[in-house]
Amino acid sequence: MTGESTDSSDPAVNDLLGVLAYVALTAFVRVAEDAELAPTVRDKARLGRIAVKEFAHFETLVSRLKEIDADPETAMAPFVPAVDAFHARTAPNDWLEGLVKAFVGEGIVTDFYREVAEYVDPATRAIVHQVLEDTGHSDFAERAVTAAIHADPRVAGRLALWGRRLVGEALSQAQRVAADRDSLAALLVGGDGGSGADLLEIGRMFSRLTQAHTERMARLGLSA
Amino acid sequence: MTGESTDSSDPAVNDLLGVLAYVALTAFVRVAEDAELAPTVRDKARLGRIAVKEFAHFETLVSRLKEIDADPETAMAPFVPAVDAFHARTAPNDWLEGLVKAFVGEGIVTDFYREVAEYVDPATRAIVHQVLEDTGHSDFAERAVTAAIHADPRVAGRLALWGRRLVGEALSQAQRVAADRDSLAALLVGGDGGSGADLLEIGRMFSRLTQAHTERMARLGLSA
Repeated sequence: MTGESTDSSDPAVNDLLGVLAYVALTAFVRVAEDAELAPTVRDKARLGRIAVKEFAHFETLVSRLKEIDADPETAMAPFVPAVDAFHARTAPNDWLEGLVKAFVGEGIVTDFYREVAEYVDPATRAIVHQVLEDTGHSDFAERAVTAAIHADPRVAGRLALWGRRLVGEALSQAQRVAADRDSLAALLVGGDGGSGADLLEIGRMFSRLTQAHTERMARLGLSA
Repeated sequence: MTGESTDSSDPAVNDLLGVLAYVALTAFVRVAEDAELAPTVRDKARLGRIAVKEFAHFETLVSRLKEIDADPETAMAPFVPAVDAFHARTAPNDWLEGLVKAFVGEGIVTDFYREVAEYVDPATRAIVHQVLEDTGHSDFAERAVTAAIHADPRVAGRLALWGRRLVGEALSQAQRVAADRDSLAALLVGGDGGSGADLLEIGRMFSRLTQAHTERMARLGLSA
């Protein structure tokens, strides 16, 4: 179905909604954990509000899965190991690492959503756009990290390394998912499934995501 | 003002709304952390929904503080050390300890709300009742803990000890708050502030809370 959009009964759409739902659910948990590390009650409340929005995204995706008669847990299950592995390997050691992770993660996820919105059926696209709604997390993280680097420029080196580690782990888990789920991989690049051309196209998408990540890190004053 | 209800401009009402708000905010973070430990995606989502309700309680209390022209951060600030100390000393080591903490904590907080609702002005009482709305957390925890004890009766001893430690830490922090905040302590027992009789009455309230806790632990099949 090159050049055509999917329809909602496509198993690849199940996969897509499943992975996005599990990413949103774990993002919710992660943001709430950052709230634990917040230096002030105001920051704790602010991160709480962001976490609640992430959870609303999760609920939107779960509702959509139910609408298309998919079982949400079944749809999420194939992606649990990769997403959990990513978080286990990138547990932030402090408040700043948590914020950089939020900034990097939200940036990559948002870019990914934009890439993928192009190839899905209109109903799925509407959901993707709804979930793209900004949680305000990345602005908050950007301001806080920029202020911290300004206050103590020595943290920049450590955070730049951390950013590289985050994107490396994210790409490695994403490659694993793309290799395991042919139809999802095909959907992501508007391909016809199972061909080597798709993998090449997936590689190009990863390059675009990495490029955008590099530009975001530069905005923080960090070399990527 | 023995026997009379407070009015909203009473500084003790600020204190009360402040401590309840900070307890709700940290409960939100705690539940989200339990979601991290959840053994299944379904449990993770369920705890996420409970955490979101706790956050809504926090928002309700913050709105009320703003309505009575109190700054929410200022109102919460005096209670941050005691609440944070409680959580730091009772960090659960696993999923079951987290659930017991949720069950014990929600039970004590709910009983406390009921005690206090009696002495506050009608507008504050309405807020207290709104926040009393069940999050479903304690039912969920009760079912899960009962099932775990049924599956492996050896966990009961460890969890009973854990329950005792939780209530001991909670009472010790609550005593500290009551000793520091005379007008709040007076409000909590409908007294006139600053007298030894209030402290005695506070002690009686703590006894009632402990008694109710003991009965709840017995419902889990644990000796308190």
